[in-house]
Amino acid sequence: MRIAVDAMGGDLAPQAPVEGVLAAAKEWPDTQFKLVGKPDVLNPLLGSKPSNVTVVEAEETIEADDEPVRAVRRKTNASMVVAGRLVKEGEADAMISAGNTGALMTVGLLVLGRLKGIERPGLAPILPTVDKLGVLALDLGANMDAKPEHLLQYALMGSLYRQKVHGMAKPRVGLLNVGTEEAKGNELTKAAFDLLKEAPIHFIGNVEARDVLERNCDVLVCDGFAGNILLKGMEGAADTLFGVLKKELTSSWQSKLAAAILRPNFRRVRHMMDPKEHNGAPLLGVNGLVVKSHGSSDAVATKHAIRQARVAIGNGLIAALADEFGGK
Amino acid sequence: MRIAVDAMGGDLAPQAPVEGVLAAAKEWPDTQFKLVGKPDVLNPLLGSKPSNVTVVEAEETIEADDEPVRAVRRKTNASMVVAGRLVKEGEADAMISAGNTGALMTVGLLVLGRLKGIERPGLAPILPTVDKLGVLALDLGANMDAKPEHLLQYALMGSLYRQKVHGMAKPRVGLLNVGTEEAKGNELTKAAFDLLKEAPIHFIGNVEARDVLERNCDVLVCDGFAGNILLKGMEGAADTLFGVLKKELTSSWQSKLAAAILRPNFRRVRHMMDPKEHNGAPLLGVNGLVVKSHGSSDAVATKHAIRQARVAIGNGLIAALADEFGGK
Repeated sequence: MRIAVDAMGGDLAPQAPVEGVLAAAKEWPDTQFKLVGKPDVLNPLLGSKPSNVTVVEAEETIEADDEPVRAVRRKTNASMVVAGRLVKEGEADAMISAGNTGALMTVGLLVLGRLKGIERPGLAPILPTVDKLGVLALDLGANMDAKPEHLLQYALMGSLYRQKVHGMAKPRVGLLNVGTEEAKGNELTKAAFDLLKEAPIHFIGNVEARDVLERNCDVLVCDGFAGNILLKGMEGAADTLFGVLKKELTSSWQSKLAAAILRPNFRRVRHMMDPKEHNGAPLLGVNGLVVKSHGSSDAVATKHAIRQARVAIGNGLIAALADEFGGK
Repeated sequence: MRIAVDAMGGDLAPQAPVEGVLAAAKEWPDTQFKLVGKPDVLNPLLGSKPSNVTVVEAEETIEADDEPVRAVRRKTNASMVVAGRLVKEGEADAMISAGNTGALMTVGLLVLGRLKGIERPGLAPILPTVDKLGVLALDLGANMDAKPEHLLQYALMGSLYRQKVHGMAKPRVGLLNVGTEEAKGNELTKAAFDLLKEAPIHFIGNVEARDVLERNCDVLVCDGFAGNILLKGMEGAADTLFGVLKKELTSSWQSKLAAAILRPNFRRVRHMMDPKEHNGAPLLGVNGLVVKSHGSSDAVATKHAIRQARVAIGNGLIAALADEFGGK
């Protein structure tokens, strides 16, 4: 299989994608990696390039603060756009980028196009859970004004992803809501509930934000606005709590001493909440495999994203999605 | 001043409200308390009743799982409904209940009615923050399908509440959104942004879910659905993290020992996130002061809610709101 990696996108580019690809190339010699970016920047970083890594030239870069649609339209030779074109033209089976999220979604829509039967693609990261299996949540920011039909499509795509990529036989699909009773929620969730209960998925009904970390479902369906609020709210709470705890635990020499003993324990808990552990969010609903790597991804996180992409390619995810929704 | 307290609502009723009122009656002898509920249940708990506590008879009770509107319409002699009527008829300056939230909102709407100029009342709890000053967030569950005009009314009411009840000269009003840039968000927040920037408030623009605990604003404006997702997401993350941490810290005798030394530190951090600390969420926009006490409130939390109500009464909150929106 062949994977195109945007070498210029993300806070730690180009080092992180390059190192991630080098590590992946070593672990998976059956995979061809196409590092997309400026050759004169990338080649020196590559050293004695492994035989399964090539550089594909792209002289432009989309920046984090670029306006997505305009950037994708104008910078036709940007690394992210070139990587998308490699997938479109059958030169790669997947593309990965840690760059501007809006631009990546635009690449998905404009370069690859939507899968037939899908109105709005959805971004589907894995939220961390206590048992480490995670919850696939979608949409988390691609589509701010979802309609009930979009939520139905998310449920179907998310369910298939969990089956194909994570080997779950019967993923439990939950609808993010303010209570578990059927009548709860806003107009969107009430209408979506009616569609989901008729769908060929294992729909377990409404689920609440407070239980997501306990893995109250395997696929969490939500609109992009609510999903973003949930994710950022949980991340913010975790970050703030660890920050306050750190301050508390360094407030006296006794607490410092006790905290030193507990450092491995704290690290394990911190680890659990680290979104990089599950790095690699597919943009589901476009005609090709596009994987969003976290903006702050390091080499290890980049490799996690590559692993996700490999499994998705190996299990024919895109063909299965196309089948589900009635052909490409 | 006179405060009616629903003695039968909440998980710990009637003990918690009764004990909370007894403590409050002692601390604030200038205040008359009307405990609403079944006299034969309440009188034995009251012991030698202080002179500023009276029992108001109400033979029915609204249960946690009652359908709100039907319960309020049918159980016209329920403690919550009777307490609302005391406010409506000028026999009390405020009412407090830890019972069924939906039913309490219905009491606000049906028994007291909306303030002139307000289309939808909003529930406005204080979210805990690191600096303990909290963020007043509204709406948190009263109105699931808000319109931009409702968010504008929340902003105006929340701003006035912070001024009148918390003595803030110029409360910073933020709009909950998925990013801080003006163009971010869904149709609702984009339209609300345009209204808020023209409003006579100190509007600081969009704010993100991840920074709420750092008090990124004083009044957080959101629709009831997103607000609920935010609150439950943060509470869930905090609860889960403390749960995992507890397990980690009791995993060996060394960690148990070290954790014992740090117990006061952990308790302080836990305390910070305890919603009971800021107990007492006003239902803003109804014609009288209605305060929601947390369902799991104990006596201390009940007293916190009473304190909030006293300050609001003392500073003429309802009259100020009525003025702001053009008379009762």
